[in-house]
Amino acid sequence: MHTIEFSMPDKPDPKAPAGTPTEDRPVLHRFEETPEGFRWREIELLQYKPEGTHFKGITRQALFNRPDEIPAALRYFEIEPGGYSSFEKHRHVHAVMILQGRGRVLVGDSVYDVAPFDLVYIPSGKWHQFRADDDAPLGFLCLVASDRDRPECPGEEDIAVIRSIPGLDAFVRL
Amino acid sequence: MHTIEFSMPDKPDPKAPAGTPTEDRPVLHRFEETPEGFRWREIELLQYKPEGTHFKGITRQALFNRPDEIPAALRYFEIEPGGYSSFEKHRHVHAVMILQGRGRVLVGDSVYDVAPFDLVYIPSGKWHQFRADDDAPLGFLCLVASDRDRPECPGEEDIAVIRSIPGLDAFVRL
Repeated sequence: MHTIEFSMPDKPDPKAPAGTPTEDRPVLHRFEETPEGFRWREIELLQYKPEGTHFKGITRQALFNRPDEIPAALRYFEIEPGGYSSFEKHRHVHAVMILQGRGRVLVGDSVYDVAPFDLVYIPSGKWHQFRADDDAPLGFLCLVASDRDRPECPGEEDIAVIRSIPGLDAFVRL
Repeated sequence: MHTIEFSMPDKPDPKAPAGTPTEDRPVLHRFEETPEGFRWREIELLQYKPEGTHFKGITRQALFNRPDEIPAALRYFEIEPGGYSSFEKHRHVHAVMILQGRGRVLVGDSVYDVAPFDLVYIPSGKWHQFRADDDAPLGFLCLVASDRDRPECPGEEDIAVIRSIPGLDAFVRL
């Protein structure tokens, strides 16, 4: 892993907050492409959501989540071909970068085709849903603030609106 | 760009802070691979550093930088073949994901080979430097807290230490 090993004395930084942990964490998480999808060494594969909401075929990996160091979390989600994320909204925003595959994303009143490295900004309060194409997975990074509200699912009234708009009704999975 | 356009009424969210801007920003920044490197539509190509430090052949693009929404910034850096970033340290941490190319990174007292999608964590107070291989660029995402300290460059005493350690002296560009 290391190509060179040498010892440069690290002098303690007098300005560092007491107890700053810097020593006991791996510097490198090596990427691995597997038949089951993208993986990173020593990073746990997690359930997409602990509670039951309507989604299909998603994995989640918390790539960086140390709120004491950066008050934001960088997660990787991978949706299997034909799968989708929950249709939801919340006050916090998402900053997304597509990493692999193909799919579409609904944001507010529009649907966008997405491809690797495209950036998607999901504003506060907008309904949104990601869908992978039927013949490809959709993998993406999603950056959120550590301090954020819980997602809201559509109520009966919202569902009635969705059902009344053909383009929306055809896209949304509930 | 949009494959479907329809109008779903967005009811104002009574819990949203007054003046929350959600309407006037593009949802999608399309990725483009160009002969000059990775680019995103409507995202400005920036100088690597405003002040003069020792680096070579780097561009910077601020992919997401809205501290009022997420108190962290996601930047993309691209180092040309043979180029390098500043040798520096600071109290804030970096969470890095390699996006393209090949290179090496010095973190503290070790050098790591890196390849696409590898994750690199740069702890508080550790000297670090990225170098692209001579035959490939090195492009990477770098996540930082919005509230962060300025980088520190090596002083004369640090440079004397670097010069006294053959492995370090051979790697570091000052």
